[in-house]
Amino acid sequence: MSLEFCSKPLSSRSKFKPKGGHRCYLPKDHKGKCSEFPFLAHLVKYAPRVAKKIVRDSIMTTGAAWKSEDAGPNRIRRWAMLLPDAELLKLGINMSKLKPIIVSKLREKAAEYGACMSVAQKLAWLTYGIEGCEAPPDPIRQYLEALFGRIMPNTTTCLVCKKPISFALFHTAQRGKAEIETSHSNPRLHTTVNIGFAHRACNIAQGNKTLEEFYDWIAEILLRVGYTVTKPS
Amino acid sequence: MSLEFCSKPLSSRSKFKPKGGHRCYLPKDHKGKCSEFPFLAHLVKYAPRVAKKIVRDSIMTTGAAWKSEDAGPNRIRRWAMLLPDAELLKLGINMSKLKPIIVSKLREKAAEYGACMSVAQKLAWLTYGIEGCEAPPDPIRQYLEALFGRIMPNTTTCLVCKKPISFALFHTAQRGKAEIETSHSNPRLHTTVNIGFAHRACNIAQGNKTLEEFYDWIAEILLRVGYTVTKPS
Repeated sequence: MSLEFCSKPLSSRSKFKPKGGHRCYLPKDHKGKCSEFPFLAHLVKYAPRVAKKIVRDSIMTTGAAWKSEDAGPNRIRRWAMLLPDAELLKLGINMSKLKPIIVSKLREKAAEYGACMSVAQKLAWLTYGIEGCEAPPDPIRQYLEALFGRIMPNTTTCLVCKKPISFALFHTAQRGKAEIETSHSNPRLHTTVNIGFAHRACNIAQGNKTLEEFYDWIAEILLRVGYTVTKPS
Repeated sequence: MSLEFCSKPLSSRSKFKPKGGHRCYLPKDHKGKCSEFPFLAHLVKYAPRVAKKIVRDSIMTTGAAWKSEDAGPNRIRRWAMLLPDAELLKLGINMSKLKPIIVSKLREKAAEYGACMSVAQKLAWLTYGIEGCEAPPDPIRQYLEALFGRIMPNTTTCLVCKKPISFALFHTAQRGKAEIETSHSNPRLHTTVNIGFAHRACNIAQGNKTLEEFYDWIAEILLRVGYTVTKPS
């Protein structure tokens, strides 16, 4: 499955412009105006908070929960974290002032622009598979299905616990505490195969472990409290 | 096992005085000055950060991670949370300004002064069972053993994962991120049988579930990803 994109550069006022600039993600030879997130056009109207969340989680790092001189910026473009410290200093980010743990947290969130855009597309595709989400209009369906295969309603599950997740949970967010979070099988890889949605409690429990490490870890806990546990072969 | 305490009231300048005031926790008929936390006298010198942590975690609530008008105070005496809203208002805490979720979080941390003091004693006892902790001086050993039984070095495990915990982990704390946290089997009961130490990751993973709920929850996750899991009978 694949799709060729228009890829024309888009104008951007951001000082954190990706290498090569922002690009048009409409299909090649499209008609009308170029657009970076055409696959979100329906969600932007139907569920604006979800659309914003997809954009934010796909292109921005999550840094510290707080914002201060030694904690650093709490949200920054992921591709900016590919730049050397000297470049970042010119952009107003002094990495040498940050604590080593914050630096490593920010740096491990680094991802190229193209990878971020693929993640956004995958999250849109997963969203339409969530129980309770409206079906996408045909052009968006065809676009996303060309990339990731058929959209099947009610099949998107929590990346961690594998229970179906419900669209309504997107709307119980408060002060950084949405019930559904974007989640990575391997927290250090921001790619389409690693990305998904997860319950907040599941995502928190997984922490910075890979899913495989997490399952091994909880299996060991259960063994130590007397359960019998056998790993699938 | 039991121990009779002196229980003479101690003077206190705190506006959040417990009902009946602070009391002396030296054994009945002790010699010399009264003292509220005599069982911490050795830890205060040997590991002051641990002693402070025991006092703080046993008598204070953990509120929101931030402090603001609608988040409320982030640390307050647990017994203050037993007071009605009108009393708290006189003490400068306007519960009606807080979000309902914050109110319920604060209120569920409520505990009487006596319970808090017992929890502090239990945490001191557990501390001396941690691998790498210096042995207590005899009077403190006798005091704590009269309350909770023999102190056995290297036997204190993480409340959640049951792995032994190491004293060194107390000293890797930073910005609210100590590697060892105080933990409750049932997060809504601040009592000696419910209290323990846990790895930060374990405590976070448990969240607001009871330990039993947590084990059931992770067992179900493993079942859904293909493990065979049998609960101990």
